[in-house]
Amino acid sequence: MSEDVFLKALFSRLGEFPREVVVPPGDDCAAIVLNDEQALLVAVDQVVGDRHYVRYGGNATPPHLVGRKLLARNLSDIAAMGGEPTFALVASATTSPQDHHWLNAFFDGIIDLGRQFNVVVIGGDLSSAPLDSVASLTILGTVPLGQICRRSGACPGDLLYATGTFGGSLQSGWHLKFIPRCKEARWLASRGIPRAMIDVSDGLLADLGRMCSASNVTAFLNESAIPGRNSDLPIENRLSDGEDYELLFAVSADAVAHLVDWPFKDVLLSCIGVISEPGIAPVLNHSGQPFSLSRNGYDHFASS
Amino acid sequence: MSEDVFLKALFSRLGEFPREVVVPPGDDCAAIVLNDEQALLVAVDQVVGDRHYVRYGGNATPPHLVGRKLLARNLSDIAAMGGEPTFALVASATTSPQDHHWLNAFFDGIIDLGRQFNVVVIGGDLSSAPLDSVASLTILGTVPLGQICRRSGACPGDLLYATGTFGGSLQSGWHLKFIPRCKEARWLASRGIPRAMIDVSDGLLADLGRMCSASNVTAFLNESAIPGRNSDLPIENRLSDGEDYELLFAVSADAVAHLVDWPFKDVLLSCIGVISEPGIAPVLNHSGQPFSLSRNGYDHFASS
Repeated sequence: MSEDVFLKALFSRLGEFPREVVVPPGDDCAAIVLNDEQALLVAVDQVVGDRHYVRYGGNATPPHLVGRKLLARNLSDIAAMGGEPTFALVASATTSPQDHHWLNAFFDGIIDLGRQFNVVVIGGDLSSAPLDSVASLTILGTVPLGQICRRSGACPGDLLYATGTFGGSLQSGWHLKFIPRCKEARWLASRGIPRAMIDVSDGLLADLGRMCSASNVTAFLNESAIPGRNSDLPIENRLSDGEDYELLFAVSADAVAHLVDWPFKDVLLSCIGVISEPGIAPVLNHSGQPFSLSRNGYDHFASS
Repeated sequence: MSEDVFLKALFSRLGEFPREVVVPPGDDCAAIVLNDEQALLVAVDQVVGDRHYVRYGGNATPPHLVGRKLLARNLSDIAAMGGEPTFALVASATTSPQDHHWLNAFFDGIIDLGRQFNVVVIGGDLSSAPLDSVASLTILGTVPLGQICRRSGACPGDLLYATGTFGGSLQSGWHLKFIPRCKEARWLASRGIPRAMIDVSDGLLADLGRMCSASNVTAFLNESAIPGRNSDLPIENRLSDGEDYELLFAVSADAVAHLVDWPFKDVLLSCIGVISEPGIAPVLNHSGQPFSLSRNGYDHFASS
């Protein structure tokens, strides 16, 4: 069972949400009305030793980069909603509580990236664990009520855009050094450009599938328009390697003209497909066939 | 190095907090101004398999109670601030992601206790872990700005009160079934009774020491007034077993009269000491000697 399927069943048991919950669980963040103008965004994400980074040995990931990655993943979730990050809380359970060097460097990675994004750590919990090292970070943020970007909202006829390049994240080290697309997302959201938005963390095909399911539409992907991190990266890798942490969003035909003002010269912007009526599968190739890949993106939960 | 010492050094590296952070890290929750009347409370806490509960074997803690405990610990932190809990986010990394029975029962424990306290789960992350099971829960809550109960604020001459009984939590199963003192805390805070408040999770002596350090005072404890969970529980256990999850608070001599209206007939309320000028140690016995116990409360971080 995948994380998506388990969570869907779980969410159905949570009961009614209070009216102030304008985005319930199931999107990149939940959103709660704060006042007439703003919503609070909240999300949580984890890094697990020997799942999301290498804990021991000569290839061990520097702890500074582990902390950086943990915050960056969460910032990407705030970006996906069109929001601005504000505060973080960190819970860490490590095998070596006495290894203060590791923990200090881990927190420095969070604090340093936090400074760049105006995010302040306001809470934490430290514990020891028998064998593994697990850390979770809860991110808070805000977003103007009229600018919340959800996964649902894509409509037939919308064009599908993506920032950056895809595939080869692990090999290139991108998963440790990516810059979350917060600025870019605020630029888009403040202009009302995305009708639906998601961040690509588990692979383009998997996350586009989520957007299509939430929006009850199909997407036709133009494979040749999907930029790879390297020029010779096979389509399978571009579609399903995961950990790209790019923005994927649907834009109505009317709004496409606003994208000519895209001010981020270093960040590629590509039209990679088009949204269509609900179909036989959430994501089709340009000849209308469902994608069948050997693996459909990365599921941290189902992996064993 | 203890969790307290490590966190103190860490907090000093976080830099300046924005003005809206009215309670920075170092208390039971952080508090952020929401509007003219209210603050948002946030805190995070963890449960680790074979640290906070038994993961495997005949004595394995039922997963429903593991989830219940995780939420209850966090509710106790909201109570300590005088607040009202609202929302929770849960991150879980387990060795057996395929063991859906365990995870479902774990979440049921959170959802069921949540219903009793009007707390709704609005976010989560699931992962697999190579060997351990670790879960963290982030709690959100609100508190009227004028009613925030901090650890600091206790003054010489204040009387020291505690709810409930102390010691023997693990043996009696109290640590799995305790009812967080949210109602009681709101009753106290809404009347402005506590000058300082903390929840006792790591042992009366350890948590009273924290309140005294934060308030820059000394407390004289009246050992004979500290109620034990059982009538024959030695003073050492009452002072340092931990996991009591009771409220400990300082009350000015003027405000003590308000306590005669204490409406919670099932919850014992005891005056267990008095606050004094800063002294040779944060907590003294009634003859003015510092307590020297074999162990000074439970430190989840330092334990190995």
